[in-house]
Amino acid sequence: MINQTEDSVRMREALLLAAKGVGTTSPNPPVGAVLYHGNQLIGKGYHEKAGEEHAERRAIRDALERGYADRLKNAVLYVTLEPCSTYGKTPPCTEAILSSEIGRVVYGMEDPDKRNRGRAKALLEARGIQVQGGVEEGACEAFLRPWVRSVETGLPWVTAKVACTLDGRMVRNKERWISGKEALRYAHELRLQSDAILVGGATVRADDPALTIRTPLSTVPMCKQQPWRVVMTRDQSQLPSGAKIFTDAYADRTVVYEQVENFEEMLRELHSRYGVVRLMLECGGTLLRKFLEVNLVQEWMQDMSPIIGGGPFSIVPGDFLPSELHLHEVTVQQAGNDYILHGFMDP
Amino acid sequence: MINQTEDSVRMREALLLAAKGVGTTSPNPPVGAVLYHGNQLIGKGYHEKAGEEHAERRAIRDALERGYADRLKNAVLYVTLEPCSTYGKTPPCTEAILSSEIGRVVYGMEDPDKRNRGRAKALLEARGIQVQGGVEEGACEAFLRPWVRSVETGLPWVTAKVACTLDGRMVRNKERWISGKEALRYAHELRLQSDAILVGGATVRADDPALTIRTPLSTVPMCKQQPWRVVMTRDQSQLPSGAKIFTDAYADRTVVYEQVENFEEMLRELHSRYGVVRLMLECGGTLLRKFLEVNLVQEWMQDMSPIIGGGPFSIVPGDFLPSELHLHEVTVQQAGNDYILHGFMDP
Repeated sequence: MINQTEDSVRMREALLLAAKGVGTTSPNPPVGAVLYHGNQLIGKGYHEKAGEEHAERRAIRDALERGYADRLKNAVLYVTLEPCSTYGKTPPCTEAILSSEIGRVVYGMEDPDKRNRGRAKALLEARGIQVQGGVEEGACEAFLRPWVRSVETGLPWVTAKVACTLDGRMVRNKERWISGKEALRYAHELRLQSDAILVGGATVRADDPALTIRTPLSTVPMCKQQPWRVVMTRDQSQLPSGAKIFTDAYADRTVVYEQVENFEEMLRELHSRYGVVRLMLECGGTLLRKFLEVNLVQEWMQDMSPIIGGGPFSIVPGDFLPSELHLHEVTVQQAGNDYILHGFMDP
Repeated sequence: MINQTEDSVRMREALLLAAKGVGTTSPNPPVGAVLYHGNQLIGKGYHEKAGEEHAERRAIRDALERGYADRLKNAVLYVTLEPCSTYGKTPPCTEAILSSEIGRVVYGMEDPDKRNRGRAKALLEARGIQVQGGVEEGACEAFLRPWVRSVETGLPWVTAKVACTLDGRMVRNKERWISGKEALRYAHELRLQSDAILVGGATVRADDPALTIRTPLSTVPMCKQQPWRVVMTRDQSQLPSGAKIFTDAYADRTVVYEQVENFEEMLRELHSRYGVVRLMLECGGTLLRKFLEVNLVQEWMQDMSPIIGGGPFSIVPGDFLPSELHLHEVTVQQAGNDYILHGFMDP
């Protein structure tokens, strides 16, 4: 008898493993897997970096290394995404599953690529393996939304991050920073999940930001590279050549776009050329507004400091947007004295 | 033996009773009282309206009506504010306490009026009654902050209420309202606690608001009058004579101020002439900004709707405020899709 609740619990375990890969797997998806023999966890794994083992293979290898080769035959593999069945940078996971003689495969969501969707299921069932898809499907889909967007549209998932006073202003009169230190830490965690951070030339000139991850080292995966620093500017020659992003140890991770007319085209290139799946906007209001005008933002993170009376720079300056934007799945959390509002843009 | 925790619990009961009077007692404070004989509650009461019985007298009368006359002698009276000891519209409560032969009096905070502070304590102790002040003092003081301000400064306590999009704008493009219905209900609850609501002439012309309390009748005390409607305008002749506030059943509760130069003076008159202790600002950003510039706002209630891209009317339009304002004791609560941020201005 298949216990639905048990399947869900184990899929949630696999999802927690998958989360460890966020920020390092692009352009691949972060995926997690656990192997159970009866009630015993015999192997686990997650995908860490493009070109390296997929979660399924790591879980199988983990079981072998623990000396559970003989138990694989009746084991159940839980994996958050339908296993791959075609050759990429690594051989298909379906082959590894077949050769390990795993008895049952449970996955969360199907491959969003229409050419592959359901293919693993058919292939494995034809070889006598029990397969069940759609377990904790909603949670797996929500988790993989950024990657699904990149597969379906060729565009990165864009998260806008703003810090403002309660009156929606980005600048204070006598203090430089709006965010408190707890909110800043949260913003760095978000950088950790991002493949690239985008700012405008004005921000480079005004703040000379490093745009690097500076969370405690223990929380940063070994394989995490600093995110790409993307600068949009009207005139590249107006950028200070001594700016940190041009001179620090990661200067080769800085990309400048000049006089961009078509934002979508630029985003498409960030994905195809630099493998960017998750892009974080840390620009000022003027540039942010342009992304909002063409509806290219999917996720919104607003750090509000309990201050009133900021300067004339609004997070969305000017008149009405052509179309009002609405958020869903909104949450608010406290971070020190600040409040962080997070949500997703309605399509 | 005096049980400190028991005293606190009973003082909290008295505070809950006091809360029933918020919005109807001005210019008097809302006060609550409970009478205990041993572990038995024998009487309770709260002040409901200026000119009527104070909480202490109501609690004593309640005990008498319940047939507990013989138990008053050893009873303990818990009252949130030091009992009055002078003749006002009603005789002093200290007299009622003395003639009922109550054995012990416990109060929350002292009378903020320096001429009376501690006077009841001395007076009652001289007559052999045990008196203890300062029980749940912090909670009682926080509860009575608006009234204390009115006593100490002659000015009403001002609560600014704004509704805005996430980008801090007060106007939407194609929809009239920003707040959802749950947030609107919350705003009406706030009106219930207010003695007056202030708007600018622009709001009267644009919205023709009624500025009345329209919560479910069951929650409105019988003795609650509609709040004063206060309009600040440059030119009274530009206000539409057919506006609701001039023509509805409460037209005599509408006050117009023209060309106000000195905001503090106007506020002082609202207190002295109309008994306003709690004033709610429901004006637009231009007028709100003027109150903020002269630091005459004590409480902030911001309803944020998860919308981005509102019109050019900011909640605090223009450049930096002369002094940045900071909030403390900030809380955020969800109301339908909206989030309501509430806090108090640092002095």
